[in-house]
Amino acid sequence: MSTETDHAADVAVLGCGLMGSALASALAEAGYRVIVWNRTAAKADALRGERIDVARTVAEAASAAPLLLASVGTYDDVHDMLDGIDTLGGHTLVNFTTGTPAQATRTLEWAVSRRLAYLDAAILAYPQHIGTADGLILASGPSRDWKAHSQILGVLGNVRHISEHVDAANILDASMVGAFHISALTALIESVTFAIDRGVSATELRAVTEHVLTLFIPVAAEIVHNIATNTHDTDQATLEVYSAATRSFVDTVSSDGHSARMVTAASAMLEEGERAGLGSSGISALQRVCTPRPAASI
Amino acid sequence: MSTETDHAADVAVLGCGLMGSALASALAEAGYRVIVWNRTAAKADALRGERIDVARTVAEAASAAPLLLASVGTYDDVHDMLDGIDTLGGHTLVNFTTGTPAQATRTLEWAVSRRLAYLDAAILAYPQHIGTADGLILASGPSRDWKAHSQILGVLGNVRHISEHVDAANILDASMVGAFHISALTALIESVTFAIDRGVSATELRAVTEHVLTLFIPVAAEIVHNIATNTHDTDQATLEVYSAATRSFVDTVSSDGHSARMVTAASAMLEEGERAGLGSSGISALQRVCTPRPAASI
Repeated sequence: MSTETDHAADVAVLGCGLMGSALASALAEAGYRVIVWNRTAAKADALRGERIDVARTVAEAASAAPLLLASVGTYDDVHDMLDGIDTLGGHTLVNFTTGTPAQATRTLEWAVSRRLAYLDAAILAYPQHIGTADGLILASGPSRDWKAHSQILGVLGNVRHISEHVDAANILDASMVGAFHISALTALIESVTFAIDRGVSATELRAVTEHVLTLFIPVAAEIVHNIATNTHDTDQATLEVYSAATRSFVDTVSSDGHSARMVTAASAMLEEGERAGLGSSGISALQRVCTPRPAASI
Repeated sequence: MSTETDHAADVAVLGCGLMGSALASALAEAGYRVIVWNRTAAKADALRGERIDVARTVAEAASAAPLLLASVGTYDDVHDMLDGIDTLGGHTLVNFTTGTPAQATRTLEWAVSRRLAYLDAAILAYPQHIGTADGLILASGPSRDWKAHSQILGVLGNVRHISEHVDAANILDASMVGAFHISALTALIESVTFAIDRGVSATELRAVTEHVLTLFIPVAAEIVHNIATNTHDTDQATLEVYSAATRSFVDTVSSDGHSARMVTAASAMLEEGERAGLGSSGISALQRVCTPRPAASI
């Protein structure tokens, strides 16, 4: 499956932590010739195999393949790693490193100045999911560069090019995998701690949690639709009904001294929505107290 | 499927809002003889049918069947509705009304004083799910009373008797369906608003949201296990890694003026966990800053 090229390898993987190693292995298993590099050589050496060579320097790896995949600690590490190399022109860098939307934009600018094509990427999966349909990977940046490499990138999992805007992958990563997931996770810990302390069994909690999360999926799709269209009619519970119920939840959880930090924050947000005149709308109308733009008239 | 009884009906449904109406219809469709009552007669009249009679007074309905299902606005409404009736002895009340754990306990005491058997129940579903496998209903209270009526209650959906403790259904309702779900929902609205405003398409957001929620289910099961056993080792990200990432998410979401209330609350909770010496544990160790008991030594 080697691409037609005079390069020694099809792809270089820069950074061989758990995720970089999973990327390199998936590419080799799919038949591509891979060259790997890691700051600590032992992690790269552990990957050596029939289709995986190990470079002694990052310059050697970056020169050996037209496509470079970076999976290191920070965006600063990406820049430090590649800044001194003068053979990047005409190559393409796909950056899997976790970072902010602003860092993706700055890295595109940095790459352009080196005639290096650049795609930003965010991995929404654990290393064991790489190479499988569960390995959701979002890529953003110029379509031309995506199309040139979509075949080889496609072996890494469920890889989607989501936007021409290079910061889109990190926007989704920071907002959904980051802010949303961590908020839901801390709220879960708070709620489960209360229920366990009040005598509910782990078996029942697992069943109810799975049920609540499963029912959440279609609700979430509706929330996304409502916010995308800024329409918040409801024939179910209104925002003020949610707000009243949430005050009761805060009382219940905090009544015996349990932490109710997350649900208290939710309650404050709902009360702000009521003060903004959104009480008779659906709960997704909270969009209007989240956005920095002036609130639209209702 | 009528049970052997000299009563005019198998079951009385007190309160014919959307949920009460769904309960009555499911029972009639399963072949039971139902009598319904509602404060506003029109809603009860709308249900009249081959197996559904309409009572003019709550006393008439409560006397006509050995099993009473209440689905009204508040627990106070339940008490007001039944307080003057002297024919409740030997009957069983299953209370589907939404309320707090303390209200369930007080209502059991109230019922005991009237020789009325009592089960508390929480419906974790929308009315359209009643009578189907998606209609998750939790019941709590004496096993003897549950066993006496489990067959007829079973036609209402996926009905589980979760505990001898009468407040258990409302504990799960307030903590998981209430505090957790509403916190996750407000966090979703905050995150989706940011992503939409930053140019991410609704299509991509829906796909990513479904992915994140699906991956959440096994994570949640692990969280429940960790909290139930108070063990918080991890070979994945530690609490301090989550905390550092979350500070970055707060910065990203708030950098252009967007609301970051929920993820800021999550960040504060993680930092409290770090101050409590939990930084190198798994994130579920936040249990120890949620519980009112003295923190266990790590």
